[in-house]
Formats: sequence, C-alpha cells, structure tokens
Amino acid sequence: MASVRFCGVSVCFKDRYLITIKAIFKTSLAEPVPEGYEDVADIVPPYSAFSAKGQPEDELVYVNYGRTEDFFKLERELGINCTGKILIARYGKIFRGNKVKNAVLAGAKGIILFSDPADYWAEDVEPYPKGWNLPGGGAQRGNVLNLNGAGDPLTPGYPAKEYTYRSSLEDAVGLPKIPVHPIGFHDAVHLLQNMGGPAPPDSWKGALNVSYRIGPGFTDGFRQKKVRMNIHTNNQVTRIYNVIGWIRGAVEPDRYIILGGHRDAWVFGGIDPVSGAAVVHENVRAAGKLMKKGWRPRRTLIFASWDAEEFGLQGSTEWAEDNARVLQERAVAYINADSAIEGMYTLRVDCTPSLHTLVYDITKKVSSPEEGEEGMSLYESWHKRDNWPEKDKPWISKLGSGSDFEAYFIRLGIMSGRARYTKNRKTERYSSYPVYHSVYETYEIVERFYDPRFRRLEAVARVRGGLIFSLADSAVLPLDCVEYATSLSTYANSIHQLAKKHPEAMQQYAVSFDSLFSAAENFTVAARDFHQRLDQLDSSNALAVRMVNDQLMYLERAFIDPLGLPGRPFYRHIIFAPSSHNKYAGESFPGIYDALFDIENAAEPENAWNEVKRQISIAAFTVNAAAETLKPVVSETKTSIHN
Amino acid sequence: MASVRFCGVSVCFKDRYLITIKAIFKTSLAEPVPEGYEDVADIVPPYSAFSAKGQPEDELVYVNYGRTEDFFKLERELGINCTGKILIARYGKIFRGNKVKNAVLAGAKGIILFSDPADYWAEDVEPYPKGWNLPGGGAQRGNVLNLNGAGDPLTPGYPAKEYTYRSSLEDAVGLPKIPVHPIGFHDAVHLLQNMGGPAPPDSWKGALNVSYRIGPGFTDGFRQKKVRMNIHTNNQVTRIYNVIGWIRGAVEPDRYIILGGHRDAWVFGGIDPVSGAAVVHENVRAAGKLMKKGWRPRRTLIFASWDAEEFGLQGSTEWAEDNARVLQERAVAYINADSAIEGMYTLRVDCTPSLHTLVYDITKKVSSPEEGEEGMSLYESWHKRDNWPEKDKPWISKLGSGSDFEAYFIRLGIMSGRARYTKNRKTERYSSYPVYHSVYETYEIVERFYDPRFRRLEAVARVRGGLIFSLADSAVLPLDCVEYATSLSTYANSIHQLAKKHPEAMQQYAVSFDSLFSAAENFTVAARDFHQRLDQLDSSNALAVRMVNDQLMYLERAFIDPLGLPGRPFYRHIIFAPSSHNKYAGESFPGIYDALFDIENAAEPENAWNEVKRQISIAAFTVNAAAETLKPVVSETKTSIHN
Repeated sequence: MASVRFCGVSVCFKDRYLITIKAIFKTSLAEPVPEGYEDVADIVPPYSAFSAKGQPEDELVYVNYGRTEDFFKLERELGINCTGKILIARYGKIFRGNKVKNAVLAGAKGIILFSDPADYWAEDVEPYPKGWNLPGGGAQRGNVLNLNGAGDPLTPGYPAKEYTYRSSLEDAVGLPKIPVHPIGFHDAVHLLQNMGGPAPPDSWKGALNVSYRIGPGFTDGFRQKKVRMNIHTNNQVTRIYNVIGWIRGAVEPDRYIILGGHRDAWVFGGIDPVSGAAVVHENVRAAGKLMKKGWRPRRTLIFASWDAEEFGLQGSTEWAEDNARVLQERAVAYINADSAIEGMYTLRVDCTPSLHTLVYDITKKVSSPEEGEEGMSLYESWHKRDNWPEKDKPWISKLGSGSDFEAYFIRLGIMSGRARYTKNRKTERYSSYPVYHSVYETYEIVERFYDPRFRRLEAVARVRGGLIFSLADSAVLPLDCVEYATSLSTYANSIHQLAKKHPEAMQQYAVSFDSLFSAAENFTVAARDFHQRLDQLDSSNALAVRMVNDQLMYLERAFIDPLGLPGRPFYRHIIFAPSSHNKYAGESFPGIYDALFDIENAAEPENAWNEVKRQISIAAFTVNAAAETLKPVVSETKTSIHN
Repeated sequence: MASVRFCGVSVCFKDRYLITIKAIFKTSLAEPVPEGYEDVADIVPPYSAFSAKGQPEDELVYVNYGRTEDFFKLERELGINCTGKILIARYGKIFRGNKVKNAVLAGAKGIILFSDPADYWAEDVEPYPKGWNLPGGGAQRGNVLNLNGAGDPLTPGYPAKEYTYRSSLEDAVGLPKIPVHPIGFHDAVHLLQNMGGPAPPDSWKGALNVSYRIGPGFTDGFRQKKVRMNIHTNNQVTRIYNVIGWIRGAVEPDRYIILGGHRDAWVFGGIDPVSGAAVVHENVRAAGKLMKKGWRPRRTLIFASWDAEEFGLQGSTEWAEDNARVLQERAVAYINADSAIEGMYTLRVDCTPSLHTLVYDITKKVSSPEEGEEGMSLYESWHKRDNWPEKDKPWISKLGSGSDFEAYFIRLGIMSGRARYTKNRKTERYSSYPVYHSVYETYEIVERFYDPRFRRLEAVARVRGGLIFSLADSAVLPLDCVEYATSLSTYANSIHQLAKKHPEAMQQYAVSFDSLFSAAENFTVAARDFHQRLDQLDSSNALAVRMVNDQLMYLERAFIDPLGLPGRPFYRHIIFAPSSHNKYAGESFPGIYDALFDIENAAEPENAWNEVKRQISIAAFTVNAAAETLKPVVSETKTSIHN
C-alpha cells in the first residue's frame, strides 16, 4: 500500500480584507530547495490550498487530466466508477480547481494531482538549476477552489470588511469537499508503477506511461490497490493587504485607468508574480519621471498591487466588490499585470475586442526584444512568430480567468486586457511553464534562461504601459467598437456551428439563431455609424467629447447581465466567461455554450433545448442592447416633439 | 348553498411588447352602468386579472383584510385552518395581490374579494352619481399578481420582444394558483349574512358586520357552509404599446429626465389614469409652448405613456428592461404620472429623499388650489393640512410600489418621485378612493366632485412639471444628499427599534447595528462635505459641473445591490422596497425588516438571527459604498504618487 503523507506547516497571510484561506496542513513532501536558498525558512511546501482535511483510504484510479471529457470517457466508455475512490490526475490542460470539481462530481473521496513530464518538461532542456525544466521533486502549489468569481468564500458579493457577515464554512462558496494534494513526478512514479488494471487509452499516456501497466490485482480499471491520503488543514480568516497608488487625472479625474497585478507568491515568485509586479513598478516609475517634467494624465491612473491572488483572486475581487459603485460609473479599463513572461518566444495578448486596434498600434511602436530582430517592431516579430502568420494580424485571444482581471471584466464589465511573453505554442506542448508554482521559480531562472537581457520584460512593460498611458491621455478613448462587432459575428457563427451538430434536435425544437445574427448585424451597423460620427466630432467641445467617451467606456458594461450566468451569479458578462470546464479558458456566448454542452445526453431533451433557446434569446437581447448604447444618445429614430 | 358565477367577456390589449395577460373569463356580475354610459359596449366586468381558472367548492372562511397578521390571528389565535377552504376577504389596507398570496400560502382553494362600505364608503356621501361613494353593485377590478417587479410573467429580467424566449405557464412569475374574484357589497352581503360560526373579532367588523353573526352549522370558525366559484379564464400573449416622446437636451442630450404615466384604464379611467395622463399632456403642451419661444432643455426630456400598468406595470417595466443599459448610464430621474387625484384635501408626495428639498421649493412657488386660500402657496396649504402641522415641513412619504416608477426606482436605482392630490388621511379612513377601479370612475366624478374647477389637477401638474423642468434645466442638479443622510439615520434608528423588541435574542446572537449607524454617519459626513464643495464649484467649468452632476445622478444607483433582496431579484434597492406584505407600502431597509419579521416564531432562531446579521451587514456596506460615491472622485485619503 502506497501512502501519501503530509506534515504541517503554517501559512499566514496578512490581509487588508479578512479573507478565508487554507492555512495549516502537514506533508512530508517538501521540494528540494534550490542552491542559494537553503537558508530560507518557512518555505511553504507543495499543497492544495483550501483542500478539505481527511484521511481517505481506497483504491487509486487514474483519470488522466481530470477533465470533463476524461470523466465521460471513464464512466461512459471504460465503465469505471469513481465513487468512493481516490483519484490521481495529471496537472495541465485545465485549471486544477476544475479537476477537483470533476472529482467531487464523480463521487471521489480524494484526489492527488501530479506533474507529468509530458506536461511540465520541455524537450532537450535540463531540470533547474541547469535548465528551466521542473525537477522530479518539484510540485505545483495552487488553490483548488471553484469560486466562479465570488472572492472570499465566506462573503460572496460583498467585501470582507471587519463588520461583514461571514457565512458558515458549510455555506462557503467553492470549497472542495474532499482532500486534494499535489506531488511531483518522482513521487508520482511510485504510485503509478504499481497500478493494476489494463493500460489506459493511448491518448492518456504521459511521460510516466511506463508506470501504469497492467499489474496484479486489477478488477475493473487501471487502479492502484490502495492508497491513503492524510491531509491536515485548517481554515483561518486572516488579513490581506492591497496597495493602491493614484495619479489624479488633470482633466477627468473621475475616469479611472487601472493597472493591477498581484504581489503574493507561492514561494519566491520569480516569474509569478514578480515578473509582472516589476512591470507595474516600472510603469509607476515612468509615470513619476513624466510627472517630474510636469505631465499629468488626462484621466486618473490607478496602480494596484493585489494580495492573495493565489488564494482565489482575493485581493482584486474584494477591492472590486468594495469599490463596485464607483468603478461601474468611472472605470474605463483594467490592464492586468500578472507574470510578464511564461516563455521565450513571442508576445501573447488576451483582451476585449475593443482594445485590439490599440494593442496593434502600440506593438508597432515597441521594438522586438529578440536578438537578431534589431529594427523590427514587436508587432512584426509577433506576427512573424504567430501560429497563423498568413493572417493579416497576429492573433489575440479571448480573456479567460485565473488572474486578477476577472472581477473587473467578467463581473463589472470593465474593458480589460493582459499581455505577456509566451512560448511557441505550436511546438512547445507543455502546460504553463515547467516550474510554475514550484520552489524553482526564482529570480535566477528568469535571469539565466527566460530573459537574460531583460528585454522581453521591457517589451511587455511597454505594451502594458502603452495601454494605460494611451487610455489615460487620449482625448477620445482609443477603442474600436467595429472590432467588437467583428468578434461578435465570429462568436455567433461559432456557437451556431456547435449547435448545428444536432440538426434534428434543432428542427424538432425549432431552435433558431436568427435573433442572434440579427443582433450582431445591428451591432455592426451601430458600431460603424458610431465611428463615422466620431470622425466628425468637434473635439473642442468638452461635453461632446465626454459623451462619446462615455459611450465607449460603457460599451463593455452593456454586456453585463445583472442576473448573471446560470448558477454563476458573479460571472455576468454575456459575451465572455471562463469556461465551466476550465477556468483558465475564455468561452464566448458562455450561456449558450453551457446549455449546448453534452446536450445529446440530456435527461430531458426538451427542457435542455428550451434552455438553449432561452440563452440565445438572452444573448440576442444583450447584443441588441449594447448596440443601442452606441446609437446617438437621443436616437434619431425616436419620435421627437417638434415646435 | 350560495354560488358565485361569472360570465365571459374577452379583454384584448394591444401591446408594443408581447406580454401575458389574463384575457377571458365569465361572470354574471357586471356593474350597473352609470347614466350616460349605457350604450358603451365591451365594458369589462369586475374580475381579478390573472386569476387561475377553476370551480372550487367548499366552506367559506372570512379572513378580514387577508393580511399576514389576519392569517396569523386566524391560525394562531382562533385556531382556524384555511386549507382547502374558499376565503372571502375585504379589500383595503394592502395590495390585493398580497391577499391572494396569503390565501395561497394558507392553502386556500379560492378567494373572493369584496368592497366593504367600511373601507369604500365616505361618511355623509351619496353613492355615485349623486355623490362619489361606491354603489353597492360596484366592484374593484385589478390584477392579483405577485410579480415583485418582474414585468411580463413569462420573460422576467428581459423585454418581451418578438424573439424573446417565453417560459411555460408553470414557470411564470407571480401567477396565483387559485381562482380569485371581486364582488361588490350588495353581493357580499348575501354571502356574509349566512355565515356560520362565531362572530369575528371586533376589530374585524366592517360595515357589513351584521352579516357574520353566529349561525347554524358552525363547527370551528365563522364559516359559510358552502360556496362555489366558477372562474373561466384564458391567458394570452398579446401586444401592448408604449408611446414615448423625446425633447433632445441642448447641452447634455445624454442625460434623461423621464415623466411617465400609464394610459390603460380598467373602464373609463376618469381618475386612474386619465387624471394623470392629462397632466402628462399638459406638461408636454407647456414644453411645446416653451420650445416655440426658443427654449430647449439642458437635458433630454422623455415623456412616456405606458400601456398595461393595470396588468402588473407591464409597459413601464418592459421598457425599463429594454432600455436598462442606457437608463442606468443616463437617467437622472423618473417622475411618475399616475392618477393626479385621489381626494380633495391636500397634496401627497412620495419620493426619494434627495428630491425632498426640490419638492418643497417647487410647492412654495405653486398656488394653493383651494377656495379660500387665495394668495397662499401650495406648500403653506399642504403644511397646514398635514397630519403633523407642528413639524417644520409637510410630510413626504417613502415610495412603495403599485405604479410605474417601480422598475426605475427599485430595480434600476433611478431617483423617483410622485405627487398627487389626496384625502384627509386623518379623518377619512376609507382605502384609496371609493370608486377605485370600478365602472364609476368617470370624467364626471372628477368634474362634479373631485375637482370642479380643475385647480387641484393643475396644482399637481405644476408640481410634476416643476420637478421635470427643474431637473432638466438646472446646471447643477437640484438634489439634496443631506436629506438622504437624514432619512438614512431615521431608517436606521427605526429598524434598530424594531430589533430591540427582542433584547434577549439580540444579546444571545450578538446582533449589533453599530456598523449600520457607523455607515449612516459616514454617509452624513460625505453628504455634508459634498454640498460644501458644491458651494465652491466653478460653474463655468463644464466638465467640473458634469462630474458633480454624475455624482448626484449616480447616488441613487449606489443603493442598488445587483444580487437583489432575498427571493426578490428585481427588487434591488437596499434602502427602499415594497413591503413583502403590502406592495403598495414602502419599507425602509427591507432586507433587515423581512429578516426580523415574525422572528419570534422562527423555526430555527439561530439561522433567523444570522440572516438579520447578514442583512445588517449588507445594508451597512451599501450605505458606506454610497457614501464613497459622494467623496472627491480621487479621494484625498488615498495614497497619491508625488513627484
């Protein structure tokens, strides 16, 4: 019988808000500390923050990445029942909290997460410190919550102030009900090599596939005979601190541009978050230098250093909850400043469509940080290295979640964006970056491997800074509603394609996407007309400028549905939400997507298709309503009273 | 066996929105048509709109006004079980929909509503047409929904467009599950005179009390042996029409002042709504005259004529849903224009606290419409006639619901107000006005009795018009945040007093109102400071004026909680909501109030008191958050970056 045991370490966060964090656990599986850091005390060993406590003991079932489709395969194709079992899943592909949620839904008693070299090991790279791969003793920390944007699990919807009412732990949002623990692959191999049962499907075999061969004792799946988890945890309400700096806008102090990133790190945080926090500091320093020369931004700039991001985006979410009223009236944009680097290849941008054009414009003014690309712009380098260089512009992704923009974008509808340096996603198949959330995320790993000249970080700083300074200073906000229109049409087509996989059901239940296409067309016309009027704007008329800026600023807000998405009251953006199956990924028209998900297996098809129709209706209304906000503020089509 | 039978009439409304209305029913109880109207076809006889269909037959139980406290008394003191019975309740005191809700909660199979002279009969007044009292054959129409602000029962949260998804009738919001029907007191006396059982409590005896004497056949309550209701109804989705007129603001077209009132009437609508609709027309005419002289309002004026108010505030709510995005960004105020007159005595105003001062200022400029008060202002007349003339200002009430401001104020947080002429509420004890919602609401009843010189209607028109023209034209919005502060403190004290009726429980469960008092104090300081800064405002700085106006406009929005009140997602105002026990009445701090309601009988006292604490916490946070919106837009207390 293999055993996974944990020894206690106490983790304590100081908070401005009183949030709930997982605080005490026990493990024997500390990571070997890298050279030069041997004297550092209180290194938090790998653990799954907010894991339940418990000592479950049972057969071990391997569930691949623990994705929804993996569980479907287990249950439906392989006939393996996870109820009452302990699961082992490899990290990667999806947010770890979703793996845990799936394990709970499958009835598991516990889940072990491990880093498989197939997912955390780049080819021809040495483990740290010789290279930047994850050593076999390294493991990925991280929270395993399913908050869906709630912030503090005990105070959903409200900031966790001293006086705030806190729910009981039983009523808390998103806490897993089972023990969870992360291990490295040196440990994982011991568990996996004795696995009984048949070999898993070929598609499930990672680098450790040697270990899950058919062995003795197999009954009805690829299982270890028995393991015991021994997880000691303790929840504690504690204090966190956000640090917020303001530069008052000279002309429109009541319009806010926010650059925010987190400051808390699992261990040394060399990449996550310090590569990002350093960028915030550089931008603050740039602003300070400009101010010494007499510059003042037209609008207010806010620099935010968030706490407790690693515990579920706590600092940023609590601040958003605390300031929701002023932010919903005044916030123009939120630019995120988490890790500035996760690879050594090119730029990666995720943002709201109305920021696309500004991102392209800024990257054309920034130099490529790559050796051998002197004189080339970042835009050109990015385009050249992009997966689809044949397209006329480099790819920009949808925002998902997993970082501090979430509450601003998906709950409050403040246009948001993020930029970082990334790997070559075509050739480098590992998840995230190998040492992610391990003790090996040091300053040195950045200095030696990721960005020896610090030119990549500088380029990212210029993109993030370019965004906030442009947004803060341009008389007319540099936003492109036509890009939003284009994206909406793309998303409408894409979700329609998904539905069309069920042509008979669509006919039987009279499911039509006409209203959504019509809404996207309305939006397209409204956006085009808006920008045509903008070209004729009298920019000397301060109120006229303010009015169009308000329309631009509030466009993103128009996509917010106060009722939220089904079962996710804090995910309120009708166009974008984190995938219900992977918090990291962005889903477009998430309400429709979720209604369609696995609909072929719906217990009550008519109800399921009615929900699809309801979601199409909500999406169509929302897009139409957003289009209305772009029309002249007193529509010409309305009846006017003439004298 | 008495029998109540109904004969069919078809009611059809044409809608801009496709809403669901109760459309077909049968009754034999048409009202005697008043003189001069004998030839009018298609008079809709008295019925309860949205009643369920059915033919329940059982013993009749008299439940007084059908209020929550009446049912408590029945069940707890008198030991009478209403399950499976048919109830008879007198109209008055509370919204009829709440009576029906209570009947359903009590397990009744049907409910008959009657107009008792004790509630619909003024002393020394003849019935119409000789006077303005309700004839014995008259009965009160009206919807019996419990929508809680949802608008169309089939499309809660979204406008009922052609393409909108409609829920099934089973999932519809607020439809009563039992048959309901209204009768006049000539019919009621036949039912009541044969009532068995003991006399009801003295406090329950209306003018018809002769009829519920102890009679034969009594078993365990004051019951009629048997009645049968025979209700045929048919629900139908149909079209309604709102008529909206706009005058584009010359300076700030993107700031909206709305004057809205409904146009639909149960029969002739002489009072409800035409006395109000006429006021809208007069104000439109006044605006037209001003425009001929070259005037243009600074802000946009919107005149709205709503449809289907009587079917659950449908026109106004659907328009609010349709335009929520632009309204939440741009609407400054909504002034309601339902019935302008319900009595002949003095002014009655219900409005948000920040409008108090403007209401007083305007009424000081309007003349008293009363004979013998020449040279006296409306303000003086109103103050003199007020219930509390010893106070330094006439009384202004909280907004409840039951008219079209609901979606604007309680869902969207747009400051709202209403004004009308009313009875002497100290001496005239009848509910509403006697002929309310009957066939006797004619033009003549206004001309002969309520306002023969039409001076009272004119005074109301000047108050409503004064509000919208002041709000549209003043450079700085004429709103008083200090009045809001005063009201908040009053409400905090009042809800605290209510809680203090349970001193032991408050101690046992550590219930404190400190956070709420502290928040009210924060708000008071912020409001005072705001107005001090306002006194020093450079009014030549267009952007500076816009910024303070935005703070004033959005103040009401700050009280909106996107999560809504418990179980009432469309009632989102934390300071004001319609009472859960009477839609007509406004409740302050409704979340706390509802949590405290009947708490001494809570099944789980600890949970119940935890909910009180949670609601206090939400209220305190909301008041604090609103206070933040009044502070300088970049707070001086924040850390600034200095050069």
